[in-house]
Amino acid sequence: MPSPSSSRAVLLIHGGAGTLSREAMTPERADAFHAGLAESLRAGHAILAAGGSALDAVTAAVQVMEDDPLFNAGRGAVYTTDARHEMDAAVMEGSARRAGAVTSICGPRYPVLAARAVMEQTEHVLLAGDGAERFCRDAGLEFCPPDWFGTRNRLDALQAEMRRRAKGLADDGDQSRKHGTVGAVALDSHGTLAAATSTGGMTAKRPGRVGDTPVIGAGTWADNRTCAVSCTGHGEYFIRYAVGHELDARMRWGGQALTDAATTLVEQELAAVGGSGGLIAVAHDGSFCLPFNSVGMYRGFVRTEQAVLHTGLFRDGERQTPA
Amino acid sequence: MPSPSSSRAVLLIHGGAGTLSREAMTPERADAFHAGLAESLRAGHAILAAGGSALDAVTAAVQVMEDDPLFNAGRGAVYTTDARHEMDAAVMEGSARRAGAVTSICGPRYPVLAARAVMEQTEHVLLAGDGAERFCRDAGLEFCPPDWFGTRNRLDALQAEMRRRAKGLADDGDQSRKHGTVGAVALDSHGTLAAATSTGGMTAKRPGRVGDTPVIGAGTWADNRTCAVSCTGHGEYFIRYAVGHELDARMRWGGQALTDAATTLVEQELAAVGGSGGLIAVAHDGSFCLPFNSVGMYRGFVRTEQAVLHTGLFRDGERQTPA
Repeated sequence: MPSPSSSRAVLLIHGGAGTLSREAMTPERADAFHAGLAESLRAGHAILAAGGSALDAVTAAVQVMEDDPLFNAGRGAVYTTDARHEMDAAVMEGSARRAGAVTSICGPRYPVLAARAVMEQTEHVLLAGDGAERFCRDAGLEFCPPDWFGTRNRLDALQAEMRRRAKGLADDGDQSRKHGTVGAVALDSHGTLAAATSTGGMTAKRPGRVGDTPVIGAGTWADNRTCAVSCTGHGEYFIRYAVGHELDARMRWGGQALTDAATTLVEQELAAVGGSGGLIAVAHDGSFCLPFNSVGMYRGFVRTEQAVLHTGLFRDGERQTPA
Repeated sequence: MPSPSSSRAVLLIHGGAGTLSREAMTPERADAFHAGLAESLRAGHAILAAGGSALDAVTAAVQVMEDDPLFNAGRGAVYTTDARHEMDAAVMEGSARRAGAVTSICGPRYPVLAARAVMEQTEHVLLAGDGAERFCRDAGLEFCPPDWFGTRNRLDALQAEMRRRAKGLADDGDQSRKHGTVGAVALDSHGTLAAATSTGGMTAKRPGRVGDTPVIGAGTWADNRTCAVSCTGHGEYFIRYAVGHELDARMRWGGQALTDAATTLVEQELAAVGGSGGLIAVAHDGSFCLPFNSVGMYRGFVRTEQAVLHTGLFRDGERQTPA
């Protein structure tokens, strides 16, 4: 087993792939996204730098994005065709492949904490719908009313999409409607990997539709022997390609390096079949990558040895901020 | 790509792992299980022998078990602690990794047809709860009232378990409470693989609990390049080990033979961590296996070239019946 020094600790985050087209991105809006990503990184970095766990770091990083209405998770979650929110989240910790996930919930302020409570307080991995919400109440998680999650922008996006459909127009190919997920992966100073993902799903999604986020092995995966992975993109493809577990398998059985495996899978294989999106992944040796095949992927990373927050939205224009 | 002749076509089924202890198995009850398994095999075999598709064969085989109250899927599904039914099902077809699944539904007579409708009539892979049921109504699937799914035996099992818990007794280790899933995998004369799985879950499960059945990559998987897999057992372990996709990966990246990979995974690795259960799997070359680490696994297989229905409940006592 590798035993990375604390200087190897690293945190990566994503805030969705292509949730705004390049044209629609004003300088003010770009600043807001960079700032939101930096705040998320800062929260996780503080934990890792103090010798905390990867699980705590990814949870904290995701909570910041769940609270930020810019991101499609928690507050700011998109709407279903019923004008409701259905949120999914998952966490996984790599030392013993412990995992927890929730799907189709609306209530807990932090869906990632709901997923973590499933992992830590039940013998189960996945809870759905009303039963999941009931468990969250019993677990004492903070709840918010449905209105708390909604924003004017998301409602406008729903109405625009419903008008488009009412006119019988074909899918506009707008990646912004399909991509919106937040996630984090980390390697801590103890050599443990963890991943967390949270999402409101797709704007105007069919009620009940579940993407890859809460599917352990697809949108979320962590194993200390290989890597931790969190995905964002067109979830159905990420399920059918079992993306998270596929990277694990390419390392474990194929002897591939994480970066080679992830880049090939995202930029070539998923791109070839129309599976738009991206992922963040970190390996047990501290190597990491953030490949995407969409116009952009809101993302960031920080190494504890450098304490510099790297954030990016599109392929160029990366910014660096002191932690 | 392999191109098996029609003589290579094969169907395997399971009706759960250890759903009755050996001691509780009377000769009459054993006869009933063998007959139920044989009827399921017969339905799928008729399709394969006529040159039909693996997808049609596994669907038909699972429907027979969903209708049979002996098996924990469809009619005969177990109860949650709320004395309700929450059923899950999935299908996957190996030529293009198409997949469909439903979770936490009660309504469609054949949950496997609900999963198949998701695959064939939507752009989605997984639908949950009320939204899934609404889709099934819109798709014209046959519905049955909740009472139709219930049986006296399952209600007795729920009440016995609730009494046990009320007394504060620890988990009795009764595998029969945790294992009950039906499934089928097939290779057809065109060289296509398919898998289908359906379940009522665990007796006295927490409402909302989702096991491995509808998790593509865990309880259900099919890819023509490798294998088709359907699992039964303690679902949380099968999710955390991504069992279906793990077999695919061991063949594709590890160069392992299906039988070696599946036997090692089930009989050694899952057994070692307490992941009781088993699986059925068939490879693109027609090789297949039915490993389990539990007391029994209700199972069967038929090769079209032989037209003999093989059925088994425990390790010994396999029966053969003409198709």
